[in-house]
This record gives sequence, C-alpha cells and structure tokens, in this order.
Amino acid sequence: MPHYGRALYLGRFQPIHNGHLWAINHAMKSCDELVIAVGSAQKSHETHDPFTTGERLEMIRLALKEAKIDSEKVVVIPIPDTWESHSLWVSRVKSYCDNFDAVFSNQPLVIRLFREAGFKIERIPLHKRDTLSGTELRRMMLEGDSWKDSVPRSVAKFIRDRKLVERVRELAGRDQP
Amino acid sequence: MPHYGRALYLGRFQPIHNGHLWAINHAMKSCDELVIAVGSAQKSHETHDPFTTGERLEMIRLALKEAKIDSEKVVVIPIPDTWESHSLWVSRVKSYCDNFDAVFSNQPLVIRLFREAGFKIERIPLHKRDTLSGTELRRMMLEGDSWKDSVPRSVAKFIRDRKLVERVRELAGRDQP
Amino acid sequence: MPHYGRALYLGRFQPIHNGHLWAINHAMKSCDELVIAVGSAQKSHETHDPFTTGERLEMIRLALKEAKIDSEKVVVIPIPDTWESHSLWVSRVKSYCDNFDAVFSNQPLVIRLFREAGFKIERIPLHKRDTLSGTELRRMMLEGDSWKDSVPRSVAKFIRDRKLVERVRELAGRDQP
Amino acid sequence: MPHYGRALYLGRFQPIHNGHLWAINHAMKSCDELVIAVGSAQKSHETHDPFTTGERLEMIRLALKEAKIDSEKVVVIPIPDTWESHSLWVSRVKSYCDNFDAVFSNQPLVIRLFREAGFKIERIPLHKRDTLSGTELRRMMLEGDSWKDSVPRSVAKFIRDRKLVERVRELAGRDQP
Amino acid sequence: MPHYGRALYLGRFQPIHNGHLWAINHAMKSCDELVIAVGSAQKSHETHDPFTTGERLEMIRLALKEAKIDSEKVVVIPIPDTWESHSLWVSRVKSYCDNFDAVFSNQPLVIRLFREAGFKIERIPLHKRDTLSGTELRRMMLEGDSWKDSVPRSVAKFIRDRKLVERVRELAGRDQP
Amino acid sequence: MPHYGRALYLGRFQPIHNGHLWAINHAMKSCDELVIAVGSAQKSHETHDPFTTGERLEMIRLALKEAKIDSEKVVVIPIPDTWESHSLWVSRVKSYCDNFDAVFSNQPLVIRLFREAGFKIERIPLHKRDTLSGTELRRMMLEGDSWKDSVPRSVAKFIRDRKLVERVRELAGRDQP
Repeated sequence: MPHYGRALYLGRFQPIHNGHLWAINHAMKSCDELVIAVGSAQKSHETHDPFTTGERLEMIRLALKEAKIDSEKVVVIPIPDTWESHSLWVSRVKSYCDNFDAVFSNQPLVIRLFREAGFKIERIPLHKRDTLSGTELRRMMLEGDSWKDSVPRSVAKFIRDRKLVERVRELAGRDQP
Repeated sequence: MPHYGRALYLGRFQPIHNGHLWAINHAMKSCDELVIAVGSAQKSHETHDPFTTGERLEMIRLALKEAKIDSEKVVVIPIPDTWESHSLWVSRVKSYCDNFDAVFSNQPLVIRLFREAGFKIERIPLHKRDTLSGTELRRMMLEGDSWKDSVPRSVAKFIRDRKLVERVRELAGRDQP
Repeated sequence: MPHYGRALYLGRFQPIHNGHLWAINHAMKSCDELVIAVGSAQKSHETHDPFTTGERLEMIRLALKEAKIDSEKVVVIPIPDTWESHSLWVSRVKSYCDNFDAVFSNQPLVIRLFREAGFKIERIPLHKRDTLSGTELRRMMLEGDSWKDSVPRSVAKFIRDRKLVERVRELAGRDQP
Repeated sequence: MPHYGRALYLGRFQPIHNGHLWAINHAMKSCDELVIAVGSAQKSHETHDPFTTGERLEMIRLALKEAKIDSEKVVVIPIPDTWESHSLWVSRVKSYCDNFDAVFSNQPLVIRLFREAGFKIERIPLHKRDTLSGTELRRMMLEGDSWKDSVPRSVAKFIRDRKLVERVRELAGRDQP
Repeated sequence: MPHYGRALYLGRFQPIHNGHLWAINHAMKSCDELVIAVGSAQKSHETHDPFTTGERLEMIRLALKEAKIDSEKVVVIPIPDTWESHSLWVSRVKSYCDNFDAVFSNQPLVIRLFREAGFKIERIPLHKRDTLSGTELRRMMLEGDSWKDSVPRSVAKFIRDRKLVERVRELAGRDQP
Repeated sequence: MPHYGRALYLGRFQPIHNGHLWAINHAMKSCDELVIAVGSAQKSHETHDPFTTGERLEMIRLALKEAKIDSEKVVVIPIPDTWESHSLWVSRVKSYCDNFDAVFSNQPLVIRLFREAGFKIERIPLHKRDTLSGTELRRMMLEGDSWKDSVPRSVAKFIRDRKLVERVRELAGRDQP
C-alpha cells in the first residue's frame, strides 16, 4: 500500500467500537493524517441511529484517547447527509473535510461513489467482523447480551453514565431486554 | 395524576378514530387546555398517511363537535416533520404549540424525546387498542371490512362524501376491496 | 360581493393587529366559514418575523375572543413556506386548509398565485393602513413608540407578559429603544 | 380515445426500456406533443435508482433516436421529487412541464394525484409487462441474466461503455453476478 | 479556442433573449454538442425569477427553432439549486447533464466553481450587453419600455399570449407600467 | 465570572482571525473545555461566506496550534444551519455539541436564542473590534488592503498557498483589487 498525506475514514459510529479502532489504527499506518468523518450527522433517536452527533463525537474522543492515538494526526468531522442525492455526497464530504488522497472503506456505496470521483480506495482487512458491526452491537444492547467487550472501556462507561442502552431499548418499544 | 395547565396530545390522525377521542377525553380530565398536535403534516397520499392535513383537521373538528368536547379548551395544530432529525422535533413542536406542561402519549419515540427534553409524560390507558389503531383502520378500509363503527358518525360521513376509502384503495393499487 | 361557503384569509400575523381584525370581520360578512392561514410558520426570531407560530396562534386566539368572533366560523391553520418555490405554495395551502372558494388578500404575490390557480380573489378595503401594518408595528416596538393601541388589549397584555418587545429589540441589537 | 394537444408521460427510466418505448409510441398516436417527465431526478446510486439524471437523459435520447421518434414532437424534462409531500407533486410537474391536457400512466399514485387535480388519465395497454419492468431489468443486471434484448441496442451499448451494470452490482455489494 | 465534444452553457433564462442566443451560437461553433442548463429551476413568481421552468423551456424551444439552431446538437436541461451550498452545485450540474468538457460563462461564481472542479472555462465575448441582460429586460417590462426587440419574435408572442408581462408587473405590485 | 465545565463559543470563522483567538483565550480561562462551533457549515463561495467548512477547520487548527492552545481542552465542531427556523437552531447545536453550561457570544441572535433556552450567556469583552471583524477582513482582501496582520501567520500562509484571496475577489466579480 502506498503512503498517503491525508486519508479519509468514514463511518456512522453508532457507537464507535473496537472494529472501528482497528480500522483507524490500520489506516493511520499508511497516512500522515487521518480524517474520521462521522456520517448521517443529522440523525439520532432512530433504531439504526440512536446516538446524537454530540454523543458520537464524545465517544470517539474517549476511544481515541484510551487507544493512545496521536490526536495531532487525527481530525474528526461530522457530516450530514445530502437529501436523497448520493451524487452530491462526495462534494459534501470534500467541502467539510478539505483535501484527502485516499478513502479507507469496505462499504459498497462509499467505494463506488469515491471511485467514480477519482479517489483511491483502500479496503480494510476484516477483523472479527461478525461480532463488531454496529448493527450487531445495537442488537446486543437491545436483547441484553454482553456488548461491553466490543467497545473501549471509556465508551462503555459513557454509555452507562448516560443510560444510552435505555434509549436504544425505549426506541424499540422495549422497557426491558 | 396531577392537574396540568396546558398539556399536549400528539397523533397523525390518519384518520381520527374513537381511540383518539377516548385519549382526548382522558387527557382533558387532567388539564385546563389540551393541544392536539397533528404530526407529519407534510404527508398525504401514502399508504401509511393517506389523508391531507386539511382533511385531517376537518375530521378532527367534526369528531370534537360530535363528542361535545368544549372547543374553548382544545387547540388543534398541524406540525410538519423535521427532516431526518428527531433531535430537532421537540423544538419544532414547542415552536408551533407554545407552552405546555405535560405530554400524553404511548409512543416510544415521542415519550423518549419529550422526556429527554425534561417534559412530564403521562401514559394513556389502553382502550380496545387492537381494533382502534390507525393502521388497523386503514387495513379494514383496504380490505372492505367494516370500519365505520371505529370512527365518529360525522367522520364516517366525511370519508364517504369525499370518497376517501377509494383513495386508500387506489394508492394500494386496488380498485376493489 | 358574492357569499362564499368557505373563504381564506392569509397573513403572517407578526403579530395580529387591529387591521387584521378589521379584515377578518370584513371577510366573515361574505362567507359561512373563514380559514385564517398563518404563513411562514417555520420562521421566528427574525427582525421581520420575530414571533413563533405558537405565540402567533395564542395571540390570534386572544384577539378573536376579545373581538367576540364566533369561534365556530373560524379555523386557524399555520402553514410553513415551500422552499424557494412559489409555484408549489398554493398546493401547500390547499393541502393544509382543505376546500375554500375565495381568497381575501391585498398582497400582490398571493393574489397572483391564487388567481393563476383559478381562485376568486376579494380585495380588502383599506382601513387606516398606514398605522396598522406589521412592519410599522415592529418599527414602533423597536423605537419605543406607542404601539399598544394598534392591537387588541389582550394581545398587548400577552406581548408584555412574555416580554416580546424585548425580543424584537434584542434581535435588532438594541437593548433600549 | 380523444386526441390531445399536449400530453404527459411519467417514468423514472432506470433505465429506459422497450416497455417505455412502446408506451411512448402508444401515447404519441393520441397527442400532438408528448412531454416525457423523468421523475426522482435527484436520485442515483441507489439499488432502485442506480443511474443519474444525466445518464438517464442520454439513454432516452439514444432510444428515441433509434426508434425514429420525431424529436419535434417530444420534450424530455427531469423533475426532482417534493420532499415527503405528494400533495405538492402535481404542482411541481406543472411548473416544470407547462401545459398538458392528459396524463398517460398505469401507476396508482400518479393516476390518483393527477385525477384529483382534474386531469384526464389515459391507461397504457400492457405489453409483455412481466419482462419489461425496470425492477425486473435491474434484477437481471444484478444476477447476470440476459437483459440486453429488453432495451434498445444503443442503450445497451451506452450501459456497456459506461460499465453501468458494474455499478448496479457494486451498489448491491456484489462484485460478480 | 479548442474544439470540444460537449460543452455547457448555463443561464436562468428569465426569459431567453438575443444575448443568450448570441452566446449559444458562439459556443456551438466550438463544440459538437451544447448542453443548455436552465438554473434555479425551482423558482418562479419572484421579481428576479418571474417565469416557471415550464415557461422558460417553452420559450427556449421557440427561440432555438426560430434561430434555426440544429436541435440534434443541443440539449436543454433544467437544474434546481442546491440549498445554500455552492460547493454541491457542480456535482448537481454534472449529475443532471452528464459529461461535458468545457463551460461557457461570464458569471464570476459559475467560473470560479467550475474552475475549482477542474473544468475548462471559455468566456463569452460581450455583445451589446447593456441592453441584453435579463435584469434590464425585466425592468423594461416593468416600466413599459419597449422590450420586444431584445427577444426572438416567437418569444415575444409567447409572452404576450400568456400575459407574462402582467405577471412581472403584478409581482412588483404594479397594475400599470 | 463563574467557572464552567464545558462552554460554547460560536462563529462562522470566515476566516478565523486574531479577534476570535482573543475570545477563545478569554473563554478558556473560565472553563475546563471549550466547544468551538463553526456555524453555517453548509455555506461557501459566497461573498459573506467564501470559505468551505474544510478550509475553515484547517485554518482553525493552524491558528490554535500557533497560539499554543491546549488541544485537549478544545473541540471544534461544524454545524449547518436549520432552514429558516431559528427556533430549531439551539437543538441543532446541542445535538452536535453535546452538553455545555454556558455560551460565550456578543451576537444578538445567538444570545437571545440561548437565553430563551435557559443557557447562561457570557459576553466577550471587545478587543480592537473595528479592525477584527470577518466582514472587515473580507473587505480588506477585496480591496487589496493589508489584512495579514489580523490573522495568525500560519493562517495567512494557508490563505496565500490556497489562493483564497483570489476566490474572494472572483466571487465579487473583481479580478484585481
């Protein structure tokens, strides 16, 4: 893999988990600076997107600090969606994130859009993917499974202090797991 | 239950039915004034939201009059959704409905959002819920079942005069039940 | 003038004043039912639109009550603008206000849009117009002139109790008149 | 069927196929001029809407030329959706397409909306419908079935030259059929 | 000037006038195909943007025909604005207009945006500019000056038949010039 | 002044200048952590808002580093406007910025909105205000006055390297100062 000046890593981070951190560490080996773009910033309080951008940014800060990731080499930027217009989205990202040379992603839509816009795409090697997707994490929160080992300790504490698992359950219409 | 100066009751009222009226009467026992907020005001002509705001407001007026609810103690206000941003929605409601002290609702999202914003929530005791949801009503209209006993007589007449059952069926691609 | 079943009267009501009430009384002589549409419902806290829809609806209720206007014959409906698309606006109004046969207005854009859509337009005879426009009222609030005689007594009280003149001044960057 | 001065035919044209052409030829027998409205113009890069408006317009031009349809008698106009407001959509279409007397369509929502707005609706006789829907075409592209006979030769060439089948597959997360 | 395969010419065409036609003829000498993009498509019934997209497209068709411009070499595409986001606008244009190699324009914002996106810009030599801007045309309509010589004869007829000068005047609050 | 856990400072930062830095340093004396919210994030390439969010964030990073502001104690978050709805804006900010106890601002609208939402407001003492507003800076860029002493050295270098003064001038239709 070539070395990049500035690269982009995109996610919704609902919430940030160890899989994200593994990918961030992986990407940072190949670039001087990594932009972590927090997508669908306008959303919260939905089953698929329960946490606000403010909560997500706080959890990302905690996770990066706990993982001792050099804060000088990372920029975290929330990005709202473009209404029903995927063709505008790369421009939105560029407008919020300034220059970058490559995009680290495994998501088909992200890969396709940035490739059509002429960007270099770098796939992220899978790392215990089955237990580390956000969808799986939220399902575990909902059903009372043990999700804490899948996120950094400081993120687990934030979720507990803010009672965010209760929000996930209430949004699904369940008071109890 | 405490007595409130002004309380809020939210629904989409697609269309207003006897379950809504039961809830309105219930809520009005505990407040001086009830704001009836008509949500998703921008929507119509969808399977889940067939009626316009204008039609819904007319049906609500007819229903309140038929139920002899004191019009001095009720305010009906249509409220459009906030685009993919539940975190903005309570502010939208407050901006349209002015002050209120409590929210009567059984919907998980409504309850969660208003509780996070510091509002008092009052649950509505269930009243023959199975046959009185809007979803069930629209299903009955679609399939030719008898739905008329679930709405006030004046609302049934309005739906018939406007041929609104035909709209529900046409939107679903069915000319006949 | 012919007599209409249901007519429309549009305004932003920032805030409702005696000129509006004069027009409402005038229109009600020629229709069975008047829809009072409160435009630009999404706006507030601007120099030209300082009050929220909630505040405007409350002031309208107070004014109608003080003027002893028959609440059975009036419907008040807030309507948000359509983004930069005047060609959609008549449909928005129809969708929120249901049927009406005529539109009472003196505003060039309103008149043109509804006339192109085939509606009957009725002009409102001017009544001390110079001192009764909303623009003039807000200017008086800003500069400390006496504005209270231009609105119903109950509306003046509402504005004072809510300290809304202070908002008008603060938005303009003036702490004192 | 009466003869119309100017008629409307609506579709998303994702992509244009022989069924569309059959309908266009059918409609043109009954009008002097046909407006071909390309709906959901803001969308692209979605499973259900993979192609941009620019690509769709190019494919329509190629198809009309190959079918030797008189370009003087056809106007092609892309139209973006109205956000969650079907009640505004007929006005949007009228604003983009100017006058027309009739609408050719088999889609329940289109039929209902234009009929409520007072337009004459003409149904399109079915023509091998099962194999000629856009949904079926995109499924064939996805699964490697032979889709080329369902579109004009020039459209098939455009899709191949632009590698658009690859986009359909990548958006679905499939690199191979 | 190099010769281009496909070039873009942008305007609001409120309404199309002889200056536009001069620019279109000029641009067509240097390209095989010209895309005429009609901007701010969502707007109408404003002082600065009085005509609907439908009306503008009709007037452009009439003008191109009267000027005997080869309709095979021109594509006309309406494009709505991107809400308060100039950084998205080039992507919007590309999504609606497909490929093009150069942009003919004298407007500072258009030039800057497309140049930043890597497009070749070609300036349009001025041609009696003072009397041929849309702003000047609308002013003449408003004040009763003679505007007819500034537009093609068929466009002048369309404006007269549709009584569009009356709309320009009514929007400005003037019944008479 | 009390000491706050987390405070908010809002600006558009078009671009960041010494006045902003003075305010940031002032605010940081009274809080453990400062959220710097970058408003109108959707805007760029306008006379009043020439720079993209990406450019603004980069300049803010450079400025904070040059001023040796502790990066652990500052969070920078871009926030898009809410369409014509000031009443939603505080919720938008809270949703993006999570908790904060006080707002540092001198802007009348910001002060009014946050005070109505119950926040503590802290005014920022003026510091050579006349020469340090963004409006004045952009005017100097436009007219060729010396603006470099008003921004940190690293920001001046960024503006020069990116040729951003040329953008400011081109947007205003001026190639030369």
